[in-house]
Amino acid sequence: MKVPKPGNKIPELAPLRTARRVIGRIVSPVRKPPGSAPGTLVHTGPRKVESVTVQRLTYGPDHLREDAGTEIEPLLPEPEPGTVCWINVDGLHDPSVLEQVGARYGFHRLVLEDVLSTHQRPKVEEHRDYFFVVLKMLSYDEPTRTVSAEQVSLIVADGLLFSFQERPGDVLEPVRERLRHAKGRIRGGGSDYLAYALIDAIVDAYFAVLEKVGDHIEELEEQAVDDGSTETMHAIHQFRREILVLRRAVWPLRDALGPMYRGDIEQIGEETRVFLRDVHDHAVLVIENVESMRELLAAAMDLHLSGISNRMNEVMKVLTMIATIFIPLSFFAGVYGMNFEHMPELALPWAYPALLTLMAGIAVGMLAYFKRKRWF
Amino acid sequence: MKVPKPGNKIPELAPLRTARRVIGRIVSPVRKPPGSAPGTLVHTGPRKVESVTVQRLTYGPDHLREDAGTEIEPLLPEPEPGTVCWINVDGLHDPSVLEQVGARYGFHRLVLEDVLSTHQRPKVEEHRDYFFVVLKMLSYDEPTRTVSAEQVSLIVADGLLFSFQERPGDVLEPVRERLRHAKGRIRGGGSDYLAYALIDAIVDAYFAVLEKVGDHIEELEEQAVDDGSTETMHAIHQFRREILVLRRAVWPLRDALGPMYRGDIEQIGEETRVFLRDVHDHAVLVIENVESMRELLAAAMDLHLSGISNRMNEVMKVLTMIATIFIPLSFFAGVYGMNFEHMPELALPWAYPALLTLMAGIAVGMLAYFKRKRWF
Amino acid sequence: MKVPKPGNKIPELAPLRTARRVIGRIVSPVRKPPGSAPGTLVHTGPRKVESVTVQRLTYGPDHLREDAGTEIEPLLPEPEPGTVCWINVDGLHDPSVLEQVGARYGFHRLVLEDVLSTHQRPKVEEHRDYFFVVLKMLSYDEPTRTVSAEQVSLIVADGLLFSFQERPGDVLEPVRERLRHAKGRIRGGGSDYLAYALIDAIVDAYFAVLEKVGDHIEELEEQAVDDGSTETMHAIHQFRREILVLRRAVWPLRDALGPMYRGDIEQIGEETRVFLRDVHDHAVLVIENVESMRELLAAAMDLHLSGISNRMNEVMKVLTMIATIFIPLSFFAGVYGMNFEHMPELALPWAYPALLTLMAGIAVGMLAYFKRKRWF
Amino acid sequence: MKVPKPGNKIPELAPLRTARRVIGRIVSPVRKPPGSAPGTLVHTGPRKVESVTVQRLTYGPDHLREDAGTEIEPLLPEPEPGTVCWINVDGLHDPSVLEQVGARYGFHRLVLEDVLSTHQRPKVEEHRDYFFVVLKMLSYDEPTRTVSAEQVSLIVADGLLFSFQERPGDVLEPVRERLRHAKGRIRGGGSDYLAYALIDAIVDAYFAVLEKVGDHIEELEEQAVDDGSTETMHAIHQFRREILVLRRAVWPLRDALGPMYRGDIEQIGEETRVFLRDVHDHAVLVIENVESMRELLAAAMDLHLSGISNRMNEVMKVLTMIATIFIPLSFFAGVYGMNFEHMPELALPWAYPALLTLMAGIAVGMLAYFKRKRWF
Amino acid sequence: MKVPKPGNKIPELAPLRTARRVIGRIVSPVRKPPGSAPGTLVHTGPRKVESVTVQRLTYGPDHLREDAGTEIEPLLPEPEPGTVCWINVDGLHDPSVLEQVGARYGFHRLVLEDVLSTHQRPKVEEHRDYFFVVLKMLSYDEPTRTVSAEQVSLIVADGLLFSFQERPGDVLEPVRERLRHAKGRIRGGGSDYLAYALIDAIVDAYFAVLEKVGDHIEELEEQAVDDGSTETMHAIHQFRREILVLRRAVWPLRDALGPMYRGDIEQIGEETRVFLRDVHDHAVLVIENVESMRELLAAAMDLHLSGISNRMNEVMKVLTMIATIFIPLSFFAGVYGMNFEHMPELALPWAYPALLTLMAGIAVGMLAYFKRKRWF
Repeated sequence: MKVPKPGNKIPELAPLRTARRVIGRIVSPVRKPPGSAPGTLVHTGPRKVESVTVQRLTYGPDHLREDAGTEIEPLLPEPEPGTVCWINVDGLHDPSVLEQVGARYGFHRLVLEDVLSTHQRPKVEEHRDYFFVVLKMLSYDEPTRTVSAEQVSLIVADGLLFSFQERPGDVLEPVRERLRHAKGRIRGGGSDYLAYALIDAIVDAYFAVLEKVGDHIEELEEQAVDDGSTETMHAIHQFRREILVLRRAVWPLRDALGPMYRGDIEQIGEETRVFLRDVHDHAVLVIENVESMRELLAAAMDLHLSGISNRMNEVMKVLTMIATIFIPLSFFAGVYGMNFEHMPELALPWAYPALLTLMAGIAVGMLAYFKRKRWF
Repeated sequence: MKVPKPGNKIPELAPLRTARRVIGRIVSPVRKPPGSAPGTLVHTGPRKVESVTVQRLTYGPDHLREDAGTEIEPLLPEPEPGTVCWINVDGLHDPSVLEQVGARYGFHRLVLEDVLSTHQRPKVEEHRDYFFVVLKMLSYDEPTRTVSAEQVSLIVADGLLFSFQERPGDVLEPVRERLRHAKGRIRGGGSDYLAYALIDAIVDAYFAVLEKVGDHIEELEEQAVDDGSTETMHAIHQFRREILVLRRAVWPLRDALGPMYRGDIEQIGEETRVFLRDVHDHAVLVIENVESMRELLAAAMDLHLSGISNRMNEVMKVLTMIATIFIPLSFFAGVYGMNFEHMPELALPWAYPALLTLMAGIAVGMLAYFKRKRWF
Repeated sequence: MKVPKPGNKIPELAPLRTARRVIGRIVSPVRKPPGSAPGTLVHTGPRKVESVTVQRLTYGPDHLREDAGTEIEPLLPEPEPGTVCWINVDGLHDPSVLEQVGARYGFHRLVLEDVLSTHQRPKVEEHRDYFFVVLKMLSYDEPTRTVSAEQVSLIVADGLLFSFQERPGDVLEPVRERLRHAKGRIRGGGSDYLAYALIDAIVDAYFAVLEKVGDHIEELEEQAVDDGSTETMHAIHQFRREILVLRRAVWPLRDALGPMYRGDIEQIGEETRVFLRDVHDHAVLVIENVESMRELLAAAMDLHLSGISNRMNEVMKVLTMIATIFIPLSFFAGVYGMNFEHMPELALPWAYPALLTLMAGIAVGMLAYFKRKRWF
Repeated sequence: MKVPKPGNKIPELAPLRTARRVIGRIVSPVRKPPGSAPGTLVHTGPRKVESVTVQRLTYGPDHLREDAGTEIEPLLPEPEPGTVCWINVDGLHDPSVLEQVGARYGFHRLVLEDVLSTHQRPKVEEHRDYFFVVLKMLSYDEPTRTVSAEQVSLIVADGLLFSFQERPGDVLEPVRERLRHAKGRIRGGGSDYLAYALIDAIVDAYFAVLEKVGDHIEELEEQAVDDGSTETMHAIHQFRREILVLRRAVWPLRDALGPMYRGDIEQIGEETRVFLRDVHDHAVLVIENVESMRELLAAAMDLHLSGISNRMNEVMKVLTMIATIFIPLSFFAGVYGMNFEHMPELALPWAYPALLTLMAGIAVGMLAYFKRKRWF
Repeated sequence: MKVPKPGNKIPELAPLRTARRVIGRIVSPVRKPPGSAPGTLVHTGPRKVESVTVQRLTYGPDHLREDAGTEIEPLLPEPEPGTVCWINVDGLHDPSVLEQVGARYGFHRLVLEDVLSTHQRPKVEEHRDYFFVVLKMLSYDEPTRTVSAEQVSLIVADGLLFSFQERPGDVLEPVRERLRHAKGRIRGGGSDYLAYALIDAIVDAYFAVLEKVGDHIEELEEQAVDDGSTETMHAIHQFRREILVLRRAVWPLRDALGPMYRGDIEQIGEETRVFLRDVHDHAVLVIENVESMRELLAAAMDLHLSGISNRMNEVMKVLTMIATIFIPLSFFAGVYGMNFEHMPELALPWAYPALLTLMAGIAVGMLAYFKRKRWF
């Protein structure tokens, strides 16, 4: 991957290509047929991966087992007390995976439908024996300067956690590492603590995205002052849209985490709630940062526009002043270019140098006047 | 129907014609006389269909009967346990239909009045034995690029559902298909589940409208960058109004669905409420999308305006620079066009080529200066 | 009344004269002396009628009596069960009328004071034996295109309703007609139902005002596109203020009607509350319409400003292009108007036509260049 | 005091001098040392009066006694049933006055500190035996067109009311008059009713300020249309700041009065609460008026800016048109001023008048074209 | 420290350097690795001090002992009834300090983590035996005109208060002085009162920052009117960002203090709550002041922009007028410079002075016209 050096110009066509993607990220282009029965399992959104892969982690305070496969059926666990089982599915284009999971554990069809429709807002839903979490995992692509969001869904039951992602590759590796090395309290916690750890890892990754976006907004601000090219305008425009994507991922999250840490969801233990309050604080901090960036961007735009108009004014003022000095002088030259027979000045030997001196005087006088008026 | 190819210009007169329609969509142009008695049944709004048609679907878990007609009276059912009866009325211009329905089932006159007055805000009202829902069914007309809304009213009693539409043609066909083919749980559900299915189908159709509007906003954004014509401005203006229509249909819907899924309405069963929460989520998602489009449109407008002003600046700068270079040169030509008798330079053989060289030098020098100042 | 034809220009002085009236409508210019005792009965606001007129309607399910006079005393009724008495007073400049009413029925002095001070916000107040309603009755004066508001106060006790208006002429005539012809349920209802009927008639009349304002905003929008005169700007400015007047009458109304239909006011019966919910819905619809008009007006203003600036750009571009083409040509003419003795070209017979050809070539080349750059 | 006649220009330096005062009114320039112990009695704010004066009014339903002095100690009353004692202190620069009052009646030190620090927000605080009210008394200085605020603090205990003002002169004189002449119910009410009367008098005085500000905004609006001078811009700018001062005095007041009339403060009797609701209504009306003025000011600014830009466009268009007509004509003159030997036209006797006619034709043609394009 | 004199120009590069710092203040540039276990103690933020210093104050109503050191362990106190122990730690880069504190008193690991991560929002958290407060201590650097924030964390248990700062130097010295000299009630209060005293000192210091920022905004406003340089624009831009920093420190504080004074936190006594309400009032006042500054800044920017555009208009108008007067005159001169053989005027002896007079007349006429039109 070629990372552009800071200060590089943003190619002019980028914003348009991105625009498509923004609209695409807003309204799902591949939707299930309107009016189809609720709970119809159809994957909506672009297919992002060739084949489904399933990864299973079974652990207790002092054991851990990892399995993987491309079929979900053989990996579905029997409930085992004192053990937590985390099943991660990468790739959502095959509804039969969800069908099997739903049939086995009795998850509500609307939950399964929401897992497949990847244009959900982040939310938390409590059901009788489990709760359901939808999150957006954000990543930032430096070359195109776009934020992209991937939907992660969690179904959390007692001793069992399903996570569904659109494609392999995620920010959850550190959690897996902590499980493998029994770091922190994670092995002794239940599935609710595991859910917290996953949410925490996803929200933590927002800060990395924010930092990079922030760096680019900084560069933009320098550009905004330095040059008045339309590329800067386009880049500001693009970031406005990227921040729109960020906001849509983050704002609903705060509201969704509220009931989790306040104890409205029964499956979440007292202990874990303290940690969820911490994640909630992080989410609020992310929102605040996004809003601050929005304001900085608006300020950068104001600065850029006022810079452009200043430069334009400068140019026009100088050009107009040059014209304004020479037009009256040309008039005097024109007068003595007339062919009247009776123009006594024409015969005076000192008339020509005198006129030249007068012209120079007028020019100098006008310059002095402009200077005194601080017009340049 | 002739669908314009993407990139086609929007005809200049469209926005104005649409304007009328926007105002019309806001303030009902044919209203009942002010001060007339409440519950007076007068159809307000344009008559959109020639004659009233009534369609009846009676079904239970294992039977289904369809009837249709142009008179409501013979189709009004006797209550029958275990059976749900859905009566759909297309065309509202004949108040006697409502009179008969009201007389038979004792619906409140204000409810009947609201069915006929087609400028209602979406709402849900609970009454003693039934509840009343007002919705907007949206459609998008591609050639004129306008969103139009049709009012759909539902009166839902135990085993009985009335739906009233302004004209035939709707987005409810898939629900009828599901009933006919006993798809999903729909045949076994009560009238509350049928109400949910209808609302769901109507809200689902919003996404199709959003997608098309989104596509056009995308095209607009490309146009906004490419050309500075007033048509782009008019098209942006038009979409601002279309989004106004969208917002007015969607914002009240969210508030109206709240009490339905939260259990404030007695006639709605526990089971159905889970589904209504899902519709509510969709409504919130629609609102978010509409708001995002609003922001994208505002951004497109900023980009367009700044593009226009950039182009104008460019033009004026070039034109003014040309003038600024030639005006001083003309002055020199003017000086040596003067008719003074004593102008010794005039007699020098090398004076003319020298002056031409000087002039060229001045022109080149000015160009170099402008270039160095990055004025072009 | 002479109604201007659509498309008529708005006279230039109108906005200013209206401005005074807007301020006048905001801060009462004739106020009671600051610091005077609360409950001091002083009429504040312009005197709008010569003499006070009182109109009394006494009715029960099967009788109706009408009386009128210019004195309040003889018309004050004795309470009579099963009968409702509606006393309407036109003209507020005589505090003694209020004194007599207050003395007879024991209304709180602050209520009487509020009736007389015609710059109240719409509100509903509950007192021990009665409730008090303040409303604004709106009318639209087409020739001056201004919205004017008249304060209507209702004091509603058991079997007794006082209404106070600033001047004769109102939108309540249809209610009187319904009483006279015993239309609807109005004769059998109590004074609370009569209060509802009056509020409903006043709110219904808002739609007529909205419709006319909406029509004019539509015309404005066409003007905004067609011509760039300052009159359009002034007209937009005026409507901004008219909408301010509308908003101030309507926003508080919604909050005031809330407690009425929710059952917080004891004197209002269960039955009537359903009707009041309907009025509340209308008030919300009016607010929505006013807000939509606000947005349409803002959009019209944007369109108008961008139209003006486009036209200006067009003009300046054409003018500057003409100058830019002729200035270099003049320079060439100037060169060959110089009087140097040694200008060999001057003697060549084909020099003159050649130069003319060259000049034409330059002009055509510049035009082609401008055309290719799409500058015109 | 010299009141400027309506239409007078606002002197150019006024806004800047006022600016200082606005900042001064926002952040107290003389503060107690940061970190000093809470309850430290230091007067913060400019000293506005030479010496402290104390005024005492003791009254019951049928007696009234007035005393005055410059020392607080001898005027502090013994509690006496059936009697209300109002002690008014003008001048806050001497903390010992507060010390003595606090020592005698046991008021909380933070209350005493708040009395002295004159940059408090309006508020109401309940304490065990008394309640504490902070208000802003507004006045409008016509010559400088500035709103100034003076802090008034009330400590209200049973039968005892202290009021503290920054300097003599207030809007409370009518209340004193009513006490002296036993007008209204004021003599028979308790200290809570007296507190109401004082608050009512202060809020009533806001309307007088609003009226004058409103008059000036009206004048401004006329100016905004008539002339495009920078003074109008400065005056609009100044009023923006004055309205900021108004808002800061009025917005917190509404929230502060809420608990008073809703019965959250024990010391306020049922009876008085009805009157406080009335004051609350007035406060809301003041807020609405201030917000309306804000909007009118914003509209006046838009009108002014668009007026300036229209005038500028007009000027530039006319000037540029003149230049555009003469530049091509000069070119033709230049052509026939060339000194080519072979210019056959020069010898034709009708060439000169023909050229003049052609030139006139070109000028008229251009004018006609500009006219047809509606460029002037 | 060199304080620039009022009126000094702000160096042009400042805003950019500051921009970096603003982004830095928003998104922590040194963060703990994403996904690391919760409660991992890593210092995030720039290291601001060489070595950790610890300061201990132990006091009761009649004794006080001060100790200091660079190690935390020996200074951790044993609980002692009737005594309050305040341990202040300057420097956060060594997590082992927190480890030891946490191990000894059992503070939650998330609390310890929050102390170290210096990009927290201000907040108050209640835990079982203690409560935790995060605040921002603000300071204003006059030469660079930037507001910088330092995080201060308080852990308050019974008789024990820890305060953690990023570096030595704070606004808490007056509190220490009051403890040493037993001023006010501070020695007799518990650790909750000490916490109040610290929060109060920090909030009080905000006013000093506000005052200085206010002074600079005032200067800016004068500059905004006087000169149209881009530096003013940059300075306004910079203050927009500084106010962003201020807002982020102050807004969350208000919400955080709410539960403290309302009694939701058990460890805070009745007595102290009255004082906390006072701090809350101050926080609200700070917010109001910050918002007012925001508005003043926006107003200054409007004034500046309108000033620039006015000046530009002035310049262009004068320049264009000069050109417009001389271009027609040059045309006349050009006409009589033509070489037609038959131009009878050329031979008339009075033609030349007549033409000169005509030209002067045209110039004067145009000037008079421009003057009458009030174009200059």
